[in-house]
Amino acid sequence: MADILELNMAGEGPVVVVQRAPSLTRLVISTPPANALSLAVMDALLAGLAEAAADRTNRVVVIAGEGKVFSAGHDLKELTAHRSDADGGRAFFTTTMQKCAELMQAIVRHPNPVIAEVNGLATAAGCQLVASCDLAIASEESQFCTPGVNIGLFCSTPMVALSRNLSPKHAMEMLLTGETIDARSARDFGLVNRVVPPEYLGTVVGKYATTIASKSSLTVKTGKEAFYRQAEMGLSDAYAYAAGVMVENMLAKDAEEGIGAFLEKRKPEWTHE
Amino acid sequence: MADILELNMAGEGPVVVVQRAPSLTRLVISTPPANALSLAVMDALLAGLAEAAADRTNRVVVIAGEGKVFSAGHDLKELTAHRSDADGGRAFFTTTMQKCAELMQAIVRHPNPVIAEVNGLATAAGCQLVASCDLAIASEESQFCTPGVNIGLFCSTPMVALSRNLSPKHAMEMLLTGETIDARSARDFGLVNRVVPPEYLGTVVGKYATTIASKSSLTVKTGKEAFYRQAEMGLSDAYAYAAGVMVENMLAKDAEEGIGAFLEKRKPEWTHE
Amino acid sequence: MADILELNMAGEGPVVVVQRAPSLTRLVISTPPANALSLAVMDALLAGLAEAAADRTNRVVVIAGEGKVFSAGHDLKELTAHRSDADGGRAFFTTTMQKCAELMQAIVRHPNPVIAEVNGLATAAGCQLVASCDLAIASEESQFCTPGVNIGLFCSTPMVALSRNLSPKHAMEMLLTGETIDARSARDFGLVNRVVPPEYLGTVVGKYATTIASKSSLTVKTGKEAFYRQAEMGLSDAYAYAAGVMVENMLAKDAEEGIGAFLEKRKPEWTHE
Repeated sequence: MADILELNMAGEGPVVVVQRAPSLTRLVISTPPANALSLAVMDALLAGLAEAAADRTNRVVVIAGEGKVFSAGHDLKELTAHRSDADGGRAFFTTTMQKCAELMQAIVRHPNPVIAEVNGLATAAGCQLVASCDLAIASEESQFCTPGVNIGLFCSTPMVALSRNLSPKHAMEMLLTGETIDARSARDFGLVNRVVPPEYLGTVVGKYATTIASKSSLTVKTGKEAFYRQAEMGLSDAYAYAAGVMVENMLAKDAEEGIGAFLEKRKPEWTHE
Repeated sequence: MADILELNMAGEGPVVVVQRAPSLTRLVISTPPANALSLAVMDALLAGLAEAAADRTNRVVVIAGEGKVFSAGHDLKELTAHRSDADGGRAFFTTTMQKCAELMQAIVRHPNPVIAEVNGLATAAGCQLVASCDLAIASEESQFCTPGVNIGLFCSTPMVALSRNLSPKHAMEMLLTGETIDARSARDFGLVNRVVPPEYLGTVVGKYATTIASKSSLTVKTGKEAFYRQAEMGLSDAYAYAAGVMVENMLAKDAEEGIGAFLEKRKPEWTHE
Repeated sequence: MADILELNMAGEGPVVVVQRAPSLTRLVISTPPANALSLAVMDALLAGLAEAAADRTNRVVVIAGEGKVFSAGHDLKELTAHRSDADGGRAFFTTTMQKCAELMQAIVRHPNPVIAEVNGLATAAGCQLVASCDLAIASEESQFCTPGVNIGLFCSTPMVALSRNLSPKHAMEMLLTGETIDARSARDFGLVNRVVPPEYLGTVVGKYATTIASKSSLTVKTGKEAFYRQAEMGLSDAYAYAAGVMVENMLAKDAEEGIGAFLEKRKPEWTHE
């Protein structure tokens, strides 16, 4: 993770700081203190994700937040300002909600694993961002909630990601009461993989990133895509599909090299297709 | 939760006691000791749910049982008595199982959150009732099982709700062995939200009810409906649907008021549409 | 579990030892140390499962491994040997992956509950075998992983079973990092039902088998089939289907006997249809 190069996003400022290291893209939401998901921030995250996807040397994406909050979700001031639009805000609200849905699905469909590095409070669409990532590592001080119900706006898009991570009773409790859960509960409920002391957060995320970056990128890409596709199928279709994926994977060079290296007890050299 | 008014259900007796308090309907299954789900009890629960749904001032429904058992499930004596019907019971069994399915779905589709207040044993369709509620709070002495397999009648309708709350191995263990799990296991498995000392059960359920009742009812209704609808969709359809729900929610008065109040740091006043 | 009769599978040797006891079939993968799922082993497991399904006195199937490993998954040497086939292995890889998918689904569709008795390491398709069983009991020394990503071959068919047992973040961590989890984590994640000291593994599995064998076999078969069928349906279809299953179950002799025995406080006598 050395040699990190900071690039600002094109546009009016570094709302998302893009940090590049060999094989790693780190996207840091940098509109503290709330790190709200304004349209500009969502566009910048989408641009950062697209850039990482296009870069064939990239292996892992990390999403983090600057300061003490991971992300507080949608930008309520920005949304409210558009209530004075001729249409009462309908067009802008639609753009925002569709952008949010696009962002979350861009994470799921990204060829690289995406890790949430959760350094603090993750609320509403910020909590959804954590739920949408493939993996999530949280500092002990992190907290999670979907408090839309408190302000008359149910967390209906966050629930899509939340309810695919948590059991229904846990998800419903968060959504209906709007109350906050701590990092350990988030781990017990399946929202995050691991909880670590804040001073080790970067180190642990780095270890996950390094581990995943050491694998064949074709294999990781194949597997991640298959994971989400088969999840929506019935058992018999899922097996027919996954068996086909395995056959193509077996015929790829990286599997030949990887299995050969394993049998010959040597380190594999990936072709990085 | 003061000023509780007790109303008996129309019909041959108070098999379900309906307790009304401002914004709360409490349905107490009152055929102890077993609180079996006879046809009369299921009809009374359905009537109580319908009444609460029709009452625009109601916000939360609580389902409880009188005495030391929450509910022991179907009324086996009633079912057995119909074996001497001309059709061997087929018509009555069909009525009973369809009524049961109707009751559980009436909970899921109810506009208000439904909380199971579990004061003791919940077996078979009684366990299903807990699984079907949006939230469940259980006393430490509560126990849960799906013991139909012991009497030659697999808990096949209970499994529908159970398998949507528990992971498959936990659900299968309960269904195949018929053995009982305690309240803590039920919490660990995702069947109940919280386990409390019996003397605090009413207080804790009341706190949940008060919390939820303080929200905008339109928002809660919108969110609960969306939760169950999106759960049956693939990710991309779920996001398209939920984004639309969010836009309509943003345009409702309660969201304007709630977000406005939040930004202005005052208490929202819901329109109670 | 006394009077166990050992039968070798037809063919070139006892790659799977079939142990028969009254009402129990125990299939022991016997190609230590790895107990790899070669084509021969998968065929032998399928034959053993088919034999148990055809035997109307059988009630439970247990799958175990000989030695210190449960199963290390696909036979990489066998797969690699076929790279020199005219088609580069495509036909053999296809046969292998389809056989694997067939085996896992034969477990799910088996009329008897299938219990994994996990005595040690379960990796890749070996881990999938555990996930595919209805129940799984593991010794404290057991370990679980899906390490295909380390050798360029993502565990794409194992993920089908894994992702139906574990929450997505836990499944993804295993699949993307290839790292090993211990038995207690496997229990916490929902992959196994129970973790026991190695010296009690056989006893505990035997207790589960005896418990299940004491039930009406028609009831168990009806319930297991319904469990997996309703799991793939939306809520309303699932209830319509399960209610129909319950009615037919009520009309079967074993339910009449079981419910009658329960009401009369005597032991039921199953017809073993």
